[in-house]
Amino acid sequence: MSKKYNVVGIGNAIVDILGNVTEKTLEDLDIGKGVMQLIDIERSKSLLNSLQNIKQTSGGSAANTIAGLAQLGLDTAYIGKVKDDDFGKVFIKDLEKIGAVFKTPFADYSINHETGRCIVMITPDGERSMNTYLGATEFLSAKDIDPELISSSQYVYLEGYRFDGPDSVMAFEKAVQIASSNDVSIALTLSDPFCVARHSQAFTSLIKESVDILFCNEEELKVLHGSNDLKQALTQVSKDVEILACTLADKGSYVCFEGGATLIPTSKKKVVDSTGAGDLFAAGFLYGLCTERDINTAARCGNTAAGEIISHIGPRSQEDLLELFRLEKLI
Amino acid sequence: MSKKYNVVGIGNAIVDILGNVTEKTLEDLDIGKGVMQLIDIERSKSLLNSLQNIKQTSGGSAANTIAGLAQLGLDTAYIGKVKDDDFGKVFIKDLEKIGAVFKTPFADYSINHETGRCIVMITPDGERSMNTYLGATEFLSAKDIDPELISSSQYVYLEGYRFDGPDSVMAFEKAVQIASSNDVSIALTLSDPFCVARHSQAFTSLIKESVDILFCNEEELKVLHGSNDLKQALTQVSKDVEILACTLADKGSYVCFEGGATLIPTSKKKVVDSTGAGDLFAAGFLYGLCTERDINTAARCGNTAAGEIISHIGPRSQEDLLELFRLEKLI
Repeated sequence: MSKKYNVVGIGNAIVDILGNVTEKTLEDLDIGKGVMQLIDIERSKSLLNSLQNIKQTSGGSAANTIAGLAQLGLDTAYIGKVKDDDFGKVFIKDLEKIGAVFKTPFADYSINHETGRCIVMITPDGERSMNTYLGATEFLSAKDIDPELISSSQYVYLEGYRFDGPDSVMAFEKAVQIASSNDVSIALTLSDPFCVARHSQAFTSLIKESVDILFCNEEELKVLHGSNDLKQALTQVSKDVEILACTLADKGSYVCFEGGATLIPTSKKKVVDSTGAGDLFAAGFLYGLCTERDINTAARCGNTAAGEIISHIGPRSQEDLLELFRLEKLI
Repeated sequence: MSKKYNVVGIGNAIVDILGNVTEKTLEDLDIGKGVMQLIDIERSKSLLNSLQNIKQTSGGSAANTIAGLAQLGLDTAYIGKVKDDDFGKVFIKDLEKIGAVFKTPFADYSINHETGRCIVMITPDGERSMNTYLGATEFLSAKDIDPELISSSQYVYLEGYRFDGPDSVMAFEKAVQIASSNDVSIALTLSDPFCVARHSQAFTSLIKESVDILFCNEEELKVLHGSNDLKQALTQVSKDVEILACTLADKGSYVCFEGGATLIPTSKKKVVDSTGAGDLFAAGFLYGLCTERDINTAARCGNTAAGEIISHIGPRSQEDLLELFRLEKLI
């Protein structure tokens, strides 16, 4: 490989803060159970006071994928926006510790927003209620896209969530332009069915014009295609991309390429926490492609990585994924 | 009431054909289980040959609502497009039998499409796999909107599904214009989360500008609002309409009006077939409004009507809904 980086990710830069709460606390704080709600900085600070057994980790969907790839030993970099504050330092330190390069400048001091965070409240039944303050991550803009970094990567991986910010959409446009003229493959993850609902036209255009690899789950693909018919959605959307990889929770994943669609089953695992399953599927899949495995094997790597992540709390692998790949004779 | 009709519905005109099949038949015919798939006329004819124990009934979402209102004794009319063929006659006869007025001209002979039909294949486990040939219903256009009929109604009820056809969107525009200048309230049903995904901008504009009463379920509202946060979606969307009625399956429904949101619980019933639950909720609700009950009572009428429909196969009530309303002291 002649490129310096295997994969550069562009997306949210958010710190996850996990803590335990009682059902009564959720009710007292008027928090919708099991859903993601956006909050402001004051609310974020007051909620932090209600948490017990706090655990902090860098989060954000594409950042999880890049972390997974770095842990698998690939050369990775990440572009996302944090402020020069405590949470910002946690985010960067965490990525750098596992070997991902992070060079995005801090949000300007004139920007009166702190580093983004997602306060995850876990009730005794294991359900997660998320309270997200986006903050600085919303200020990712075209000037944060380092042309040198993009052009020296094999793949650029775009996080759908950042389509929520007009400045970030311009950042994606710049990245796509540089990638297209420098033989860099473009991967996109659809992030969330409601995110697809918010931006279906923008996603559809980007997919038709520029995306080489599309990552999604069943619900996201159906919303994108506007129908409940998964087969139809796979057939139609796969015409617009070289590779379509669609995860199916405990059923595994579909991969579509060269006009065919193959179901790659996964061995069922008990789901402890499904957060990050899609992110790690993408990491496993891109690992397979970067190390020149065939596409079906790449999907099996994705299934295995996702299977590891759902078996414990938190979006970072606790087992050695390479060892798991070896055990399953994928590498 | 000074108007001739309580409610006029505008939407699909489709005949439902229900039949039993084995799992093997579904597989042999390559039919996606549990989903709705669009088919052409040839496929429709060949599938009909594979069905046993065939039952035919007029269907279509808004037509089900109008049928419910007619059975409740209100003055109703329906606008939808069929061809002058056997299925077209079944559709019209069925509506007229229960007292709904149907005056839409048949699709022109130059239109080479038969009356729409939905072939519902029921497997032994009770799951329904739907195969829809739209046919003539797609040709509903502005010239089918009878100004006299719209202006002489208390409510006009629009079916979201018909946003799939550009000609039908123009029919809706004409109906909305006539309604707005003749003191006719405008109700809209969002039909299906994927339909919302296909037309979220058009729905949002119509809701902001013209809709008085919005009917939807939880998933449809979330997709419309683009978030997983039901509370937020209720708060935001209800600002744009006088009344928002959102069904919550076995939890009942939310009604939002005058800045408040009230949960109207329903007594749980065993679900035999959920088809038509939303349609009959709307029928019960509009019955309440037309007979000058308060809005919360109208929602209770909606819950009761929906509860009856899910307790048996098919979208037409088998019990006397008025008697059920009386038993629950709603009327």
